[in-house]
Amino acid sequence: MGKKFQIEDIFPQAVFTIPDRKLYESAWTYLDSLTKPQGSLGRLEEIAARLYAINDGHLPLTVDPALFYTVAADHGVCDQGVSPYPQAVTRQMVENFLCGGAAINALVSAAGADLIIVDAGCKGGPFPEHKLALDRRLGDGTEDISSGCAMSVQCCVKGLRTGFELACDAIKNHAYQCIGTGEMGIGNTTTAAALLCAFLDLDPASAAGPGTGSSGAMVKHKVQIIRKALALHAQAVASADPLCIMAALGGFEIVVMSGIMLGCASARKPVLVDGFISLAAYVCALAIWPGLKDYAFITHSSAEPGSRLTLDKIGEKPFLDFGLRLGEGTGAALFFPMLRSACAIFNEMNTMSGAGISSRKS
Amino acid sequence: MGKKFQIEDIFPQAVFTIPDRKLYESAWTYLDSLTKPQGSLGRLEEIAARLYAINDGHLPLTVDPALFYTVAADHGVCDQGVSPYPQAVTRQMVENFLCGGAAINALVSAAGADLIIVDAGCKGGPFPEHKLALDRRLGDGTEDISSGCAMSVQCCVKGLRTGFELACDAIKNHAYQCIGTGEMGIGNTTTAAALLCAFLDLDPASAAGPGTGSSGAMVKHKVQIIRKALALHAQAVASADPLCIMAALGGFEIVVMSGIMLGCASARKPVLVDGFISLAAYVCALAIWPGLKDYAFITHSSAEPGSRLTLDKIGEKPFLDFGLRLGEGTGAALFFPMLRSACAIFNEMNTMSGAGISSRKS
Repeated sequence: MGKKFQIEDIFPQAVFTIPDRKLYESAWTYLDSLTKPQGSLGRLEEIAARLYAINDGHLPLTVDPALFYTVAADHGVCDQGVSPYPQAVTRQMVENFLCGGAAINALVSAAGADLIIVDAGCKGGPFPEHKLALDRRLGDGTEDISSGCAMSVQCCVKGLRTGFELACDAIKNHAYQCIGTGEMGIGNTTTAAALLCAFLDLDPASAAGPGTGSSGAMVKHKVQIIRKALALHAQAVASADPLCIMAALGGFEIVVMSGIMLGCASARKPVLVDGFISLAAYVCALAIWPGLKDYAFITHSSAEPGSRLTLDKIGEKPFLDFGLRLGEGTGAALFFPMLRSACAIFNEMNTMSGAGISSRKS
Repeated sequence: MGKKFQIEDIFPQAVFTIPDRKLYESAWTYLDSLTKPQGSLGRLEEIAARLYAINDGHLPLTVDPALFYTVAADHGVCDQGVSPYPQAVTRQMVENFLCGGAAINALVSAAGADLIIVDAGCKGGPFPEHKLALDRRLGDGTEDISSGCAMSVQCCVKGLRTGFELACDAIKNHAYQCIGTGEMGIGNTTTAAALLCAFLDLDPASAAGPGTGSSGAMVKHKVQIIRKALALHAQAVASADPLCIMAALGGFEIVVMSGIMLGCASARKPVLVDGFISLAAYVCALAIWPGLKDYAFITHSSAEPGSRLTLDKIGEKPFLDFGLRLGEGTGAALFFPMLRSACAIFNEMNTMSGAGISSRKS
């Protein structure tokens, strides 16, 4: 099954186009004409050029308003004792999000953006209705990946479409210009590491880390569980079919996040990739449509060891290295104001000739 | 002349106190009680703990409103051909700042802060009055450091006091909670490199870099000019007296920036250190009062090679590494929203017990 077929199969009516390559050149020529030595704003210019291309050369550039989706779900693999926290913490943290008391609430608010919590399948049934919450449940937690498939391929497709629709709804019906992604799910560093091993041929011993704070012994146990899951799903992994791999090893929140990323790319808006779990969702989505790369900003390098390894493998240089290892979308929210800064230099700066600045002597 | 005497001599009425060390511990204990794995917000927690200590344990933490001072001046050493740009560009860029067309205007505005341009001694006389500009001229450009002292010791003291007063005025009379520093001055990477060599015993060949875009041959020439200046002022350098070194090798904008940093520390507010020139001002100010370290945030590592070397030497790990090499305060402005994010996590997050989150199993 070729990739072109797959993506049409998953998103039958969607259009996916990459930005015109010439727009990057135009952006750099324009940036070079501004009142600063060429290239002296470093990676901020890279961000500005990318936003210009994403925006199809239309000005002004803007990333406001921005919306963050924090997607929560539970993981059957928790039965294997892969986290130092009880699984109930997923649900408790969602309640904390809805009360406004978590890091992501504080950071999204500080960044001047909006936040929606998506229940993609937390254990214990739906949450009561809440203005910040969306019920997009794919089940009551995934199955244990070390003893079976996390979900069916049909469920995986449903999750991707759910995420895709979330992005399109935010962008088309609510005029959001940028989407941030984040997650919550006790046990999901195990799931994310398994997916990264499957897609990028990483060694579980390198990809698995302490997560929310596992001890050395627990990390070793995580590695064994991941090896067991990879062995069990060797056929899916060998097929290199993104849907089969995601269904075998995925998490509900990860699948929905992959869908959100692809939805943003289809709607031609920038999407922010957060930490380790978000990176796993990105790698899955990239396997479905590599053109996503143009629309995604890898905001930071998580302190989770597999993060750096993954970034090296996919050739991405993250913008921040703050030692974050929380998830929720916190790194993406911390980074978001920098997109605004990049827009500002492109929109507001004077050109050398316009400002009457003398040119170089040499 | 001991350091204690010097600082009282420069700022006779000022009080300088470092934050109570116990406040850092209290901050970490509180951060550890919030709804996240301990330490999982990485350097954001470090920023929050420092702001809490600076704020003497008072809550809520805030860095708003914030003011950026971009200080401009000319350098006599430009006569030696150390920059590819004509010296007139300093003045032209100040005019660009006042028209709102420079990078610092765009970035300070995007960060939701205010900007004041300080003329510390640009060539060609005072600028016409302007709401964004302050005339704090110490002269019509410094003397050439390779053939004499940049300024007199009296002038250097005046510059430090000028900066100190700028900080105190902003904080005490206008309620600013945070000050950013930046500069403009053609030739000032040469001056900054000379100061860093003098204070930190760096090799000019390592400390001098391309600045606004000098060629390899011009950088070699810069190194020779810096060596000549250091030889000429060997006695001042050997004295290790900050005032003598700054008077011999300084720039007007650098001296004023050092004063601003010390003024912020005395008023117990955070001050943001920008790129290579700002770092030189910080090293000068640190020699006057080492307690400044508690109040200063080293926002980023400039792409100028001497920046990384200096940071290693003074044991500072910058927060951003964006390849910026523009100055003006641009890196500090890009970083500023992160201070706001750090305040938000401290002020707004719920505690684990308050949110009813289950504790670790192990």
